[in-house]
Amino acid sequence: MYRFSTNTLNMRSSEIRKLMKLAADPSIISFSGGMPNNQLFPCEVVEELFKNLSLQVKQEAFQYGPTQGYPPLLASLKKFLASRGLPVDSNDLIITTGAQQAINLITKAFINPGDTIISEYPSFIGGVAAFRSYGAEIKGIPLQEDGIIINQLTDAIAHTKPAPKILYLSPYFHNPAGIIYSHEKKMAVLDIIKNNDIQLLEDDPYSELYFDETYRELTRSMKSISNDAEKICYVGTFAKILGPGMRLGYLLGPKEIVEKCELAKQSMDACSPTYTQVLANAFLAEDKLTPYLNMVRPIYKRRAEIMLDALKKHMPEAVTWTKPKGGFYIWVTLPGHINASDVFTKSIAMGAAFVIGSAFDPEGKRNNCFRLAFSHTPESRIAEGIEMVAKAVKNFV
Amino acid sequence: MYRFSTNTLNMRSSEIRKLMKLAADPSIISFSGGMPNNQLFPCEVVEELFKNLSLQVKQEAFQYGPTQGYPPLLASLKKFLASRGLPVDSNDLIITTGAQQAINLITKAFINPGDTIISEYPSFIGGVAAFRSYGAEIKGIPLQEDGIIINQLTDAIAHTKPAPKILYLSPYFHNPAGIIYSHEKKMAVLDIIKNNDIQLLEDDPYSELYFDETYRELTRSMKSISNDAEKICYVGTFAKILGPGMRLGYLLGPKEIVEKCELAKQSMDACSPTYTQVLANAFLAEDKLTPYLNMVRPIYKRRAEIMLDALKKHMPEAVTWTKPKGGFYIWVTLPGHINASDVFTKSIAMGAAFVIGSAFDPEGKRNNCFRLAFSHTPESRIAEGIEMVAKAVKNFV
Repeated sequence: MYRFSTNTLNMRSSEIRKLMKLAADPSIISFSGGMPNNQLFPCEVVEELFKNLSLQVKQEAFQYGPTQGYPPLLASLKKFLASRGLPVDSNDLIITTGAQQAINLITKAFINPGDTIISEYPSFIGGVAAFRSYGAEIKGIPLQEDGIIINQLTDAIAHTKPAPKILYLSPYFHNPAGIIYSHEKKMAVLDIIKNNDIQLLEDDPYSELYFDETYRELTRSMKSISNDAEKICYVGTFAKILGPGMRLGYLLGPKEIVEKCELAKQSMDACSPTYTQVLANAFLAEDKLTPYLNMVRPIYKRRAEIMLDALKKHMPEAVTWTKPKGGFYIWVTLPGHINASDVFTKSIAMGAAFVIGSAFDPEGKRNNCFRLAFSHTPESRIAEGIEMVAKAVKNFV
Repeated sequence: MYRFSTNTLNMRSSEIRKLMKLAADPSIISFSGGMPNNQLFPCEVVEELFKNLSLQVKQEAFQYGPTQGYPPLLASLKKFLASRGLPVDSNDLIITTGAQQAINLITKAFINPGDTIISEYPSFIGGVAAFRSYGAEIKGIPLQEDGIIINQLTDAIAHTKPAPKILYLSPYFHNPAGIIYSHEKKMAVLDIIKNNDIQLLEDDPYSELYFDETYRELTRSMKSISNDAEKICYVGTFAKILGPGMRLGYLLGPKEIVEKCELAKQSMDACSPTYTQVLANAFLAEDKLTPYLNMVRPIYKRRAEIMLDALKKHMPEAVTWTKPKGGFYIWVTLPGHINASDVFTKSIAMGAAFVIGSAFDPEGKRNNCFRLAFSHTPESRIAEGIEMVAKAVKNFV
């Protein structure tokens, strides 16, 4: 009946969201949600920080801010990013309403319907949803334990006409794959970027959540390594280092691109919430991030270990999975003939949920894998839940 | 150099934003910003409300919420909207990141490049920016003191082929025109909606800010009057009744449209900030809105009166302006040969700022008007600032 636009037809179906709602049943042991556990948020610290702000700053929190971001947050975030080696002076920074909006804005800036984006398989659901909403064609290049398969990436870029506009990678504690790129893989990607007219969208929500200090070096971003800084848009978020409910992400990128994104943001939501920007700034400026990260890193590490132990104990031999060095996720690969949706149905009936692999396939097809998140599940229930998932798998192996 | 998408070319130029930045100089008496004064925000009330929430709710504030909105806020907002006669049971409600996002989502749902939207002249800048960002053609039908000119509206709908998809109106204490629609005008608009395949986007940010109880009846929304509820999307915001920094708006509309918007929002920012949704819910649920409105209404009324008195005292006879019954704005019309940009240049040199009329013209041309906001300027400086503006005008009359 309604004369809707054609671009809405390109949006992702609500299938996956239905599955995720099912998985939200409180009686289910859920490995579905890619979020921190509610008990892990720095509630008291943030409340105390707010209380101690001046009345003037509290009032500012209620007011519109510049589209680019609340200036004190831009300053404290720049300091933080500079400490991670990112080129904050030669690039522009903009605060976005979650990293989701940063990805959306970059897509809007570059993509006409029919343009190609190259991503990984598996790939972040929200990225794929944003790409689809602008009518992009998406090619998903498989991941290995150390990153994207380079010769397949080279081939895809060479053989796509017109040339793909964006390469979308999430190299650090990948969602959903759980892997981290090796230094060699990053250098190979940078080489490809150098030799092709393509923009790298480097999505980095999890790199602060390494399990051991020795893995830290691996989290060094391509944006901070590269000499081709004008070819890389670096996206980050406060979702995993403060709380997703703040809806704060950011984009560090070439001035010309950030200006386009700022214009687009102006017509999208005018500015990100000043209230939560004030909180995030206090959190950074008062140096609360480091102690918070020191508190949560071993917790996530322990949850991952419990899950890995349980997988080893219960999963049939034909099943493999990634061994995360940080982040929230383990990616499980079933023998090729098994459909993760069938396993899901059995598993949910027994009382444990995960997200099926096809949700993360840009082409929406490949489905012999699934994602387990260990970030959100109480430690005491992880082993029990994995045993259920393994039992479900055993029906098909 | 960058292979940007074509849709970014349709975005509004940054000209107006430059003028607004200029007007933000603290030594300037500014009538530019369409926002509440910082001193008027209910800071203490909100801080107290948050303090008294349970730890569980405080933790929820840090977490993702459903794309449609934080369920307790949806419930308390429905109660509030029902008290204003809005059909909350036969329609769906979605929380958006400011009303700006609600307008953007509806535009995305309906508009292909080249489709026509009919709006008012003058019209809200943010609405026009959203429409342009999807490549819409915009026709601005002039406003009178009691609303849009009906025969021009009928003609525009009849003579636009293909038929326009959206009619965008802001009938209550209009930004920038400051007027409110008469009951007769609203009924005439509803008649047009009934007889044409066009969606009414009823934008209502200011209706709670009436200056006298007797004007309240005028703020009755078309959505609440109409029997054609499926043809009206009603958009509101917390910006003017709590604070724009919360970035919370909402859309009450037909289920099918809200579902489209929810899908689009999923790929835009996933959900609106839970933290500020928790605050807004406490504000509504604990019944803090009514006392807050009772406090601010007479303040805005007094500021408007001071401004009207000063205009009467200082403006040359050939200049006219609207007499607001509520809201934030007065719209000044100069004799046709005078360009508001020239007046602006003189005025800013003397120390007072406003927003020039062409900023509010969907066609970006007509410029013999300007907007004065009285919401943001300290009472003690209004008369002095208006005297400066009038002096600037006198250079050209």
